[in-house]
Amino acid sequence: MNALAEAAPAAERIVVPVALAERSYDILIGRHQLCEAAQVIASRFPGARAAIVTDTNLATLHAPALESCLQQAGVTATRLTIPPGESSKSYARFSELCDGLLAAKIERNDLVIALGGGVVGDLSGFAASVLRRGVRLVQIPTSLLAQVDSSVGGKTGINSSHGKNLIGAFHQPALVVCDTALLDTLSEREFKAGYAEVVKYGLIDDAAFFDWCEVNWRRVMEGGPERDHAVATACRAKAAVVARDEREDGDRALLNLGHTFAHALERLTRYDSARLVHGEAVAIGLSLAFRFSQRLGLCSGQDAGRVAAHLAAVGLPTRLQDVPGGAGTASDIVEAMTQDKKVKRGALTFILAHGIGKSFIAPGVATETAHDFIESELVERI
Amino acid sequence: MNALAEAAPAAERIVVPVALAERSYDILIGRHQLCEAAQVIASRFPGARAAIVTDTNLATLHAPALESCLQQAGVTATRLTIPPGESSKSYARFSELCDGLLAAKIERNDLVIALGGGVVGDLSGFAASVLRRGVRLVQIPTSLLAQVDSSVGGKTGINSSHGKNLIGAFHQPALVVCDTALLDTLSEREFKAGYAEVVKYGLIDDAAFFDWCEVNWRRVMEGGPERDHAVATACRAKAAVVARDEREDGDRALLNLGHTFAHALERLTRYDSARLVHGEAVAIGLSLAFRFSQRLGLCSGQDAGRVAAHLAAVGLPTRLQDVPGGAGTASDIVEAMTQDKKVKRGALTFILAHGIGKSFIAPGVATETAHDFIESELVERI
Repeated sequence: MNALAEAAPAAERIVVPVALAERSYDILIGRHQLCEAAQVIASRFPGARAAIVTDTNLATLHAPALESCLQQAGVTATRLTIPPGESSKSYARFSELCDGLLAAKIERNDLVIALGGGVVGDLSGFAASVLRRGVRLVQIPTSLLAQVDSSVGGKTGINSSHGKNLIGAFHQPALVVCDTALLDTLSEREFKAGYAEVVKYGLIDDAAFFDWCEVNWRRVMEGGPERDHAVATACRAKAAVVARDEREDGDRALLNLGHTFAHALERLTRYDSARLVHGEAVAIGLSLAFRFSQRLGLCSGQDAGRVAAHLAAVGLPTRLQDVPGGAGTASDIVEAMTQDKKVKRGALTFILAHGIGKSFIAPGVATETAHDFIESELVERI
Repeated sequence: MNALAEAAPAAERIVVPVALAERSYDILIGRHQLCEAAQVIASRFPGARAAIVTDTNLATLHAPALESCLQQAGVTATRLTIPPGESSKSYARFSELCDGLLAAKIERNDLVIALGGGVVGDLSGFAASVLRRGVRLVQIPTSLLAQVDSSVGGKTGINSSHGKNLIGAFHQPALVVCDTALLDTLSEREFKAGYAEVVKYGLIDDAAFFDWCEVNWRRVMEGGPERDHAVATACRAKAAVVARDEREDGDRALLNLGHTFAHALERLTRYDSARLVHGEAVAIGLSLAFRFSQRLGLCSGQDAGRVAAHLAAVGLPTRLQDVPGGAGTASDIVEAMTQDKKVKRGALTFILAHGIGKSFIAPGVATETAHDFIESELVERI
């Protein structure tokens, strides 16, 4: 053991296993886990070389620390950077990245390390899934959104002019490392946006966790054990759903709570993060999903009110009117929803709820029903 | 049943099952199977829409017949065409095809039908594997090479400037239809090239089939029951290997008999089909694999001689000197081999043989050993 590793003893961590038979893997959660991650990589994948994929922002912020840890652990690594932002999830960046990984001589037993937010994870995960028909992927998510959502479960992909994430693969990572200290550098807006996905897990099937969130959200933002607990609870919930339904043939669709609305709003704001980021769209989507459930007589107004009140207290948007520049008419929103890949033979699928922690998949919702609800939202809440 | 179907009763066919648990599928083999295929599609995938991907040559030759059969069977189909030739296995055509499939509103439960040779199958199979993270694929191979090799087993992919098939996926088809009457329109050169892959199965582990080939090859070319038998034997052999080792972690590498050499030769001739097509490169590769085995004292000269003699009798190339314009020096060839994705940590993997039908995987062959052998081939056989 060298001096640096001695000086910084491994911090406490939570290990959440994802049970997927021969594709099983662990999620390590805790503060200051980069060197721990490097040790795990060195011991689990002996002899493997690594390509770190990151964006030009994180290349300065976190990549040097990871590289130093990998070097200490004896893992040879090269770095590939992509421009930050959703526009990197394109065919052009995909082909560039694949060629970059080939130029870096990444072979079948080597690995790709995605060090970044959802964009880095989705793009480099997709590239890893098709490089030489599949190489190992290690996810080291640097945003809260990526730690609790996109880095776990194996969904990877890029966007097409026809919509978001329409081209991609299910490619489970070999390891996920959620270093919660990396989140200290996030902007408040970015942290809050990720927090919407944390709350989502309580709303899906864990009312007690939603109660906990209402009490503890400030401490989650500040860091410390509550943050680790929130990330671990979210990862555990996601892992359980993914283990039951890896390829989203059934139950996994529950994770889309709020997302039919959210994807439509992102589409209508042209994925312009100045106007709306994914987590903000999800916050509005969650609120709408509960109010839609209320309107359909499925859920109490009290529960729908609690959902919106908590998200608003945190500082997240909860109404269509909160979309800067507006989200368009009810018809625009319904039209945008029908473009989503979750459409089956023209009918809309929503995740609705009988109450907090009681969500369910509602396929075959008539577009007229959705249209009427959205119209009422636009009218009533001006 | 309508008049046309009555007028053309379904021809005899062989059904070869590929056993891959929930990814199992059938290969239908026989003459005039397009309408049969359409019926099977309609009954197995009720309500699914189809996108036929084909090339501009086959769009005239075979697509109208398939479309008519699908229409009779009640399957809605649209057609997408790509330019013929290896250059279509590119990032650019891949993204165009994905967008074309999205524009055709192919959803998760719909299917992509690859009607063509290896290029169409590999490109559209890859697109199907990543479209909405995976839609069903039906392979209707129109070349002998595709019928006995690329359409079965789920390998899909495109080329990079770094090499062939370096970007792709394992995506098993939902159905493969080998209509052996479609092969009547192949040129003699193209048919013979595909025949090299047929012979390969005998050489791998079925000496009796190689004996049969020596006797029956002319009738395979002419059509009739011998052609169906050859295609079925090849598909059955490939299906058995794929069932044992879907993702090429072990045994499946046996299918690469002759291919370490073949890929290098294709690379060195810049994939210029005017000089060398894949099957011709395989014919040379098979001959070289057996002579290499002979040189290493593994295989008798008699067996190595029989392999080359049969391929030459058919009219296939068997020597490096048969490559039009030359294949380069021994160093060029070894260098080209090290670019192949089957390289593991720098060591070369060959498929060698103890005799006809007795092939095995030989990992870790020193590049010097290969170099010396190739040099002897270039010297002795001028």
